Amino acid sequence: MAIFTERELTYLREQRLGRLATVQQGGVVQNNPVGFGYNEELRTIDIGGRNMAASQKFRNVAAGSQVAFVVDDIASLNPWTVRCLEIRGDAEALVDAEDSAGNLGGPIIRIHPRRIVSFGVDPDNPAAGLRTVADER
Amino acid sequence: MAIFTERELTYLREQRLGRLATVQQGGVVQNNPVGFGYNEELRTIDIGGRNMAASQKFRNVAAGSQVAFVVDDIASLNPWTVRCLEIRGDAEALVDAEDSAGNLGGPIIRIHPRRIVSFGVDPDNPAAGLRTVADER
Repeated sequence: MAIFTERELTYLREQRLGRLATVQQGGVVQNNPVGFGYNEELRTIDIGGRNMAASQKFRNVAAGSQVAFVVDDIASLNPWTVRCLEIRGDAEALVDAEDSAGNLGGPIIRIHPRRIVSFGVDPDNPAAGLRTVADER
Repeated sequence: MAIFTERELTYLREQRLGRLATVQQGGVVQNNPVGFGYNEELRTIDIGGRNMAASQKFRNVAAGSQVAFVVDDIASLNPWTVRCLEIRGDAEALVDAEDSAGNLGGPIIRIHPRRIVSFGVDPDNPAAGLRTVADER
């Protein structure tokens, strides 16, 4: 079963920047702008970037942090209308992922979506709210 | 002492959308696009929004979650250059804040910046990295 609708996939492809929230042990939260790709084969969000392996977000994920990733934009200023696709889930800190989306190579963070909040992205389903992704692993 | 440079304040005023990361007890992370204002008097980031008091982010903050808030944009696609201002800290869930930035009224989340990551926002200080805000409370 697809975890995103076609409209949501189009939105993901159009947006260039997402934000990844991770948590350190002890509760310190961080929120980092990141480039990303959707891995159609694995149905994951793959995130690369310079100095990934040395980054605190990579270490947070390696230490077991759950994550929340969001892409959004302002569809209209007046009335104030925001669209967003928020993806929550588990993540892996992979030192060398040969199967990454877009063949990023090198270290990546791989998100396995568990819950998705889709808002304003899919005209057929404008306020889809929170939905749970079946776990097939 | 000012916690943001003038350039950073200008950037904060120009950006309309930020993303607020909070954590539930148990470790579930969420990351929500939000409108915001900088409260010059209190030196806080104030976040309002419809149904704020009923939102999970508000409940997360009320339960003691630390937060991370980020504004960012793509300055250049080629070379890939992202600007961002990330603000980490403690937060309060206020049911009725009469002193909120922009007089939002009603319930708000108020962030007390503790650590700031400024990247590409201030030409005088293009890669300022992580800095700690003095605690005057």
